[in-house]
Amino acid sequence: MQKRYYSYKEFVADTRELITLQKDFQAESIVAIARGGLTLGHAMAEGLNLREVQTIRTELYDESCKRENISLFGSCSFDAVKRVLVVDDIADSGETLKKVMEYLESNFPQIEFKVATLFYKPVSLYKPHFWVNEAKEWIEFFWEKDFS
Amino acid sequence: MQKRYYSYKEFVADTRELITLQKDFQAESIVAIARGGLTLGHAMAEGLNLREVQTIRTELYDESCKRENISLFGSCSFDAVKRVLVVDDIADSGETLKKVMEYLESNFPQIEFKVATLFYKPVSLYKPHFWVNEAKEWIEFFWEKDFS
Repeated sequence: MQKRYYSYKEFVADTRELITLQKDFQAESIVAIARGGLTLGHAMAEGLNLREVQTIRTELYDESCKRENISLFGSCSFDAVKRVLVVDDIADSGETLKKVMEYLESNFPQIEFKVATLFYKPVSLYKPHFWVNEAKEWIEFFWEKDFS
Repeated sequence: MQKRYYSYKEFVADTRELITLQKDFQAESIVAIARGGLTLGHAMAEGLNLREVQTIRTELYDESCKRENISLFGSCSFDAVKRVLVVDDIADSGETLKKVMEYLESNFPQIEFKVATLFYKPVSLYKPHFWVNEAKEWIEFFWEKDFS
């Protein structure tokens, strides 16, 4: 599969677009999925002027039937918010988002959650409510390349 | 006080320097202080190839005697790690770092914590173990300016 380097410059433009796309939702709080969603969660929180950013981390075990082997680390808590935006870099297989959303929706039924990602693959098990680019190549995000 | 825009390009160079500075510590896990430390925490985790990134959030209440009015949100959990790097953008007044380190060191006495920041002000109540720049102006970080 072809690789595509995704630069900070593209990220700025896409994050601004994502902020516009989700505007009507009026999110009050952000959950960023670590690691991939951390930089986006930070940027969205600054752009939306939201102080409350929480993170949740998943780990995919590399076993034969991987769908049964995602673990979720960290728990969220919400204080009197009604609308929460969950952000990640990409809905790829969609397994991470599916697992995180199952956790959030079952534990916080009083809250409306929507998902925003920079990239979306149509094969993803989970379709984000808001996304900017369809991923046709293997995306090499700047945060994966610029610091090593 | 003069303002200085701090760009992504400077951030890349400084984060790489911070990664070098803290090398001997051999951190096994990262705690990023939200919001300011989120992008740095993500970059350091990628550069150090650490999967475990947690966040903790503080809020400073704007009252007369502000030192008594920092609240800490979120809790950390560590699974068999011995050395944890706590990252934030700047040690400014140092009150956030002081509060976070009191929480971490009293709750996890078996773990060694060290602090890494991009900027440090000599007036800070807390001196990071690793830092790159002395802050002489008011720093406008790219994540505060580029998305709004």
